[in-house]
Amino acid sequence: MTTRSIRSRFGTSLRRLREERGYSQEELAERAGLHRNYVGSVERGERNVALENIVKLSKALSVAPRELFTDFS
Amino acid sequence: MTTRSIRSRFGTSLRRLREERGYSQEELAERAGLHRNYVGSVERGERNVALENIVKLSKALSVAPRELFTDFS
Repeated sequence: MTTRSIRSRFGTSLRRLREERGYSQEELAERAGLHRNYVGSVERGERNVALENIVKLSKALSVAPRELFTDFS
Repeated sequence: MTTRSIRSRFGTSLRRLREERGYSQEELAERAGLHRNYVGSVERGERNVALENIVKLSKALSVAPRELFTDFS
């Protein structure tokens, strides 16, 4: 798995879960206490997101952190 | 979940999986392409580990990345 595909898979999972909940990027960012530009860049696969933000994003989506890794084998 | 507990839970999961496989920290570090001091500090809950290293560690343990998040609710 390349660096690009790791970041992209995570971003794709995040976008899918966000859209399932009907949140905009701004709403998700606000719920997570993160900047909306940051959320956009994560979804585009540009970020090497670390543990604490993974947990913030999962809480904002009301899922367990592992749910953000279902697109990884 | 505090910053400390997030890092600690991840470290605890990593240590458990590593020990189940009978790897030393050095063996795991070598398999993952990371420094053994880094692996030790992750296990002690000192690191805000990011996606790419999460994937490296999971591959070195032959598990899916989500297996490193089973101690998170």
